[in-house]
Amino acid sequence: MTSQLFDPHLQEVLDLVGIFIFALSGGLLAVRKNLDIFGIAVLAEATALGGGVIRDVLIGAVPPAAFADQIYFLTPLAAAVVVFFLHPEVARINWSVQTLDAAGLGLFCVTGTAKAHDYGLGSVASIALGMITAAGGGVIRDVLANELPSLLRWDRALYAVPALVGSAIVAGLIAGGRLNATTGTLAAMAAFAIRMLALRYDWRAPRAWQRSSSRAEE
Amino acid sequence: MTSQLFDPHLQEVLDLVGIFIFALSGGLLAVRKNLDIFGIAVLAEATALGGGVIRDVLIGAVPPAAFADQIYFLTPLAAAVVVFFLHPEVARINWSVQTLDAAGLGLFCVTGTAKAHDYGLGSVASIALGMITAAGGGVIRDVLANELPSLLRWDRALYAVPALVGSAIVAGLIAGGRLNATTGTLAAMAAFAIRMLALRYDWRAPRAWQRSSSRAEE
Amino acid sequence: MTSQLFDPHLQEVLDLVGIFIFALSGGLLAVRKNLDIFGIAVLAEATALGGGVIRDVLIGAVPPAAFADQIYFLTPLAAAVVVFFLHPEVARINWSVQTLDAAGLGLFCVTGTAKAHDYGLGSVASIALGMITAAGGGVIRDVLANELPSLLRWDRALYAVPALVGSAIVAGLIAGGRLNATTGTLAAMAAFAIRMLALRYDWRAPRAWQRSSSRAEE
Repeated sequence: MTSQLFDPHLQEVLDLVGIFIFALSGGLLAVRKNLDIFGIAVLAEATALGGGVIRDVLIGAVPPAAFADQIYFLTPLAAAVVVFFLHPEVARINWSVQTLDAAGLGLFCVTGTAKAHDYGLGSVASIALGMITAAGGGVIRDVLANELPSLLRWDRALYAVPALVGSAIVAGLIAGGRLNATTGTLAAMAAFAIRMLALRYDWRAPRAWQRSSSRAEE
Repeated sequence: MTSQLFDPHLQEVLDLVGIFIFALSGGLLAVRKNLDIFGIAVLAEATALGGGVIRDVLIGAVPPAAFADQIYFLTPLAAAVVVFFLHPEVARINWSVQTLDAAGLGLFCVTGTAKAHDYGLGSVASIALGMITAAGGGVIRDVLANELPSLLRWDRALYAVPALVGSAIVAGLIAGGRLNATTGTLAAMAAFAIRMLALRYDWRAPRAWQRSSSRAEE
Repeated sequence: MTSQLFDPHLQEVLDLVGIFIFALSGGLLAVRKNLDIFGIAVLAEATALGGGVIRDVLIGAVPPAAFADQIYFLTPLAAAVVVFFLHPEVARINWSVQTLDAAGLGLFCVTGTAKAHDYGLGSVASIALGMITAAGGGVIRDVLANELPSLLRWDRALYAVPALVGSAIVAGLIAGGRLNATTGTLAAMAAFAIRMLALRYDWRAPRAWQRSSSRAEE
């Protein structure tokens, strides 16, 4: 299994850190939307696990990995409790949260692409599933919160592009037979670096031609 | 199969009553949103069948049970017709609808948890799937209607908690080897009772710490 | 396989034309919502492939057909590029787009119903899946764009009904053992014709009884 890129224990620790951070972003949105503790928990779970669950359903790996080990369920609940009590502090350390979120983005696009390949999907489909793994949870979070997905908005720094780059590098490495713990880590770091640069310099993607000067309708 | 808790005929009657009631709630929201007869039918179907379909997709029981017997499709259509002609009357007997909805909540969290266990899931995942079975249709209803899900709102009486209690009791009964028609009924009645008390006394869950006095942003 | 109604090459060409057109509608909505090029691409992909992906997940045909051949992924990207540069022109030839969209609707309700039957589903479930194949992508498009689904709105011309008629004809043909390339084409043309008539004469479905004169709340 190429998706078992890293030592299993290291992989699990990385997964759980990524899940915890994604859950924090779901919980913080729930607080901003004035939801109750259960709303915080639901958005934390959906944000943290949603991308991987969609990937697993699409490749036929059911029940999804998130349902196989209860630690994957309990980690977002821990994040929900942290947000419930400490949301002003968590929001204040926004820079740290965004840095860790970028790390989760890098990790999940790599492992998502590799897992899709393991299940027999081609390069393009594996890249798409890597991106879904990394960014799908955030889209579910925003849809549940009745917001236009942050991923789609032109006024937010690039999010899909770093995942695309990370996933494409992994697909290239697989095609060349060179995916291993070292190269996989480098791919994750590339996605991480692009995301951090996009945040730092507020890189955005262009809107449709002839439209960039118009005001947002929404 | 522990999910075959009850006599099959009784189980089917209970399922169909629950589906009919859930479909009424979907149809009534469609009327409030001023949708046409097809919008009423789509929301009725999605609300009534959505939770069970998600559960079945996640545990790999495809095609979902709702697609295996056409009576499951036709029942929400019947509810849509009732809402189309009689919506003022249905809305007026709101208390009866909410009582029956609470009964559906109790029934579906029990059968959902038991079915997930039958498919090999652990306790925590089975509880999560019981809650998804009971409450998932309502979330799909609200997302399709472009509303913040009622389940997540702090200003609505508890809905997730009764399902959680019912599902957790069933998981405990399974772990102890004591799930049968009697104990399963008691678990459903516990969820039902908590939901009815929450409605009667307007029990709500707390919002994030230090925030309870702020106005809803939404 | 009754779903292999047509010559495989013809079928693929028809599929890709339908996918391209559906992707245009997703891309145009993204432009109206002022999304960036990645938002355009995501909505194009989701609109074009969403209905078929849901159908395949529900019948257990995973990974979905859309993930098996990269041409299905690349076609919506081509549509996204067209929309990005030429959206005023594409919007101006709205009548052509709606005509082709109606053709896609007819094609996909026929192939969706036939594929569901191939996977062992009954008549009612196959009809439902034909409608989901044809109309599901548009619902996903609108949910992602945070809009009330066009399919559900009373103030839009009939969309579900043409798909229902086409799917029901196919289910009848299958039951009578008479589904072939000719009759399947006729079913698709029936759905196409009804949709075109609905657009031409602005056919709408009734809203709930005693409500038709009230203003839309939304």
